[in-house]
Amino acid sequence: MTGSNDGLRLDLGDRSYDIAVGDGTLKSAGTAIRNAAGPGKCWVVTDETVAATYLAPLEDSLREAGLAFQTIVLPPGEGSKNFATVENVVNTVLDGAPERSSTMIALGGGVIGDLTGFAASIILRGINFVQIPTTLLAQVDSSVGGKTGINTRHGKNLAGAFYQPKLVIADTGVLDTLPRRELVAGYAEVVKYGLIRDVGFFDWLEQNGAAVLDGDGEARAYAVRASCAAKAAVVAEDERENGVRALLNFGHTFGHALEAETGFGAELLHGEAVAIGMIMALELSATLDLCPVADIDRVRQHYAATGLPMTVPKAQNRRWEPATLIRHMGHDKKVQDGKVTFILARGIGKAFVARDVDLGDVERLLDDAVGA
Amino acid sequence: MTGSNDGLRLDLGDRSYDIAVGDGTLKSAGTAIRNAAGPGKCWVVTDETVAATYLAPLEDSLREAGLAFQTIVLPPGEGSKNFATVENVVNTVLDGAPERSSTMIALGGGVIGDLTGFAASIILRGINFVQIPTTLLAQVDSSVGGKTGINTRHGKNLAGAFYQPKLVIADTGVLDTLPRRELVAGYAEVVKYGLIRDVGFFDWLEQNGAAVLDGDGEARAYAVRASCAAKAAVVAEDERENGVRALLNFGHTFGHALEAETGFGAELLHGEAVAIGMIMALELSATLDLCPVADIDRVRQHYAATGLPMTVPKAQNRRWEPATLIRHMGHDKKVQDGKVTFILARGIGKAFVARDVDLGDVERLLDDAVGA
Repeated sequence: MTGSNDGLRLDLGDRSYDIAVGDGTLKSAGTAIRNAAGPGKCWVVTDETVAATYLAPLEDSLREAGLAFQTIVLPPGEGSKNFATVENVVNTVLDGAPERSSTMIALGGGVIGDLTGFAASIILRGINFVQIPTTLLAQVDSSVGGKTGINTRHGKNLAGAFYQPKLVIADTGVLDTLPRRELVAGYAEVVKYGLIRDVGFFDWLEQNGAAVLDGDGEARAYAVRASCAAKAAVVAEDERENGVRALLNFGHTFGHALEAETGFGAELLHGEAVAIGMIMALELSATLDLCPVADIDRVRQHYAATGLPMTVPKAQNRRWEPATLIRHMGHDKKVQDGKVTFILARGIGKAFVARDVDLGDVERLLDDAVGA
Repeated sequence: MTGSNDGLRLDLGDRSYDIAVGDGTLKSAGTAIRNAAGPGKCWVVTDETVAATYLAPLEDSLREAGLAFQTIVLPPGEGSKNFATVENVVNTVLDGAPERSSTMIALGGGVIGDLTGFAASIILRGINFVQIPTTLLAQVDSSVGGKTGINTRHGKNLAGAFYQPKLVIADTGVLDTLPRRELVAGYAEVVKYGLIRDVGFFDWLEQNGAAVLDGDGEARAYAVRASCAAKAAVVAEDERENGVRALLNFGHTFGHALEAETGFGAELLHGEAVAIGMIMALELSATLDLCPVADIDRVRQHYAATGLPMTVPKAQNRRWEPATLIRHMGHDKKVQDGKVTFILARGIGKAFVARDVDLGDVERLLDDAVGA
């Protein structure tokens, strides 16, 4: 449990890469990128919001490292994650005659990372790709592990590629400018790592979670680092989600349904949906006599202490229907042979993949959780 | 040198797959697909031309094997290899709620195979994919090895993925209905395997090439099989073209320039461009004192005997400009650090990668080859 920044690496043979976590790592991004991806030409992809604060320091650092680059600035928001934007980004990069040694750099949150990674994966059948995540959610989850993609009219992330970056640069200093609500939402994914298989980390979060959210630099760096290490270990074991990687979806099947119902927008952020979904997954585990109720109480206390949402928002004109939510789950891509898989838990740190959950139990759980 | 059909396999660890070569393999496609890709739902992608003759037998065979399927029929031709068609195909498949165990089946030539493989690679970040190539070119080249992709306004195959099929079914019987010109063009890629590293196979082609083109079933199956075996060996050694796989581009840098100049259309088929490009590569090798002139004479004799083109077509209104052709090469995606790589040869069966060819030599060669 130190705040040191050395040696975090995702081990995938000749596709292994470093995850550079720390306060101020953006300043030396150029050199790190040059070391990891070579001296080829770079394309930075970012959005208007992030560009306003962090594009200039990144560009300075690329110049200092002697890297030629162009910058593509997209509008912020989930609306960019579609085929049309990918095609535009691909064509813009191809306008500059990239080679296989060229590098795309994603500077932003999950939307920018997913979109840029997918574009990098298909240009010339794959050019270099570097992630510089600027939200807590992206730093601890989406930037690590190589899941890239876009949304279609059928749902989120239904088209994409498994494509690993050459480097992830998580500058925890940039979280200082992140709105509190986004910070808390991203924190849900941090808590997830404790819940799925590290009760010791959950202990640490109980002691330090408030400090992480309140901007304590050392606590924040430790939390991001531990989360990235947890994710890296899982991905190294199961890159393409044939096994243990499914644990990372803890809370996500429920969360996905909640997000689908609220339109994947500001009404319910992804991390908030996951937070609520994890409570639902624990409650479902308890009703199946798998998870001690005392563990759920402990998780609820931590949620209360850190401001994580436990229940669906009571928005006007929003009626939560268990049957509708279950339908949303049916279009989740984690379906196998017609059955929705749930990640359940035998307690804090003891998640497992359950493939044969009775949908009746799920419906009763949802009735209790979202019913009038 | 037998015509037997057993045991051809591309060895890529857990992504290894069989290449089923033989007369009549289409009839048992359903069972073979079920064995290789499982019982999941299938989507067949084909074009109107191929569908007219070969869709019904494939569908019968899928039904016999108890596989549920839908069929997507595209217009024939290179015009389908674009982002818009991929997006349509992806959305059509997603309309049917695929799972990761679902399978896309490409029934057609290189365009259908490249497009379908790319779509399969991105749906849910990768579903199963099976190639049923129906042209000689696709059977001996594009269906094996996992290169998939589409064209952009910048050139051919500039966006795509390395994505291996679960199975390739090359029914040499379907070549009976292939127009002679397409058959001969595809034969250029067969000759290529002899030229790059198998003088023994080139010897065999000298004896049997005419029989292959005239429809001798045993000779044809042997030629396809030997070609697939040669390609499989190269791809197994170097899947992502970091080394030896580049040899498969013998004749392709010149050929690509010729195709770009003629608009990738009926004026010059891909195989014809490759045939001419291989002669150019041999001539360039000879001018650099690398390749004995006697070997080139031998190759020219084989071209003459089988009807392969040796020189660019003298179309009206077409002026071949060496400088323009060299510009076309500059946009080839095989460029590294600004230098065009050429595959040269020290004789028949002795190709190698040359990275530092003087463009002046190339220009002089082109002057001789296409000049007035």
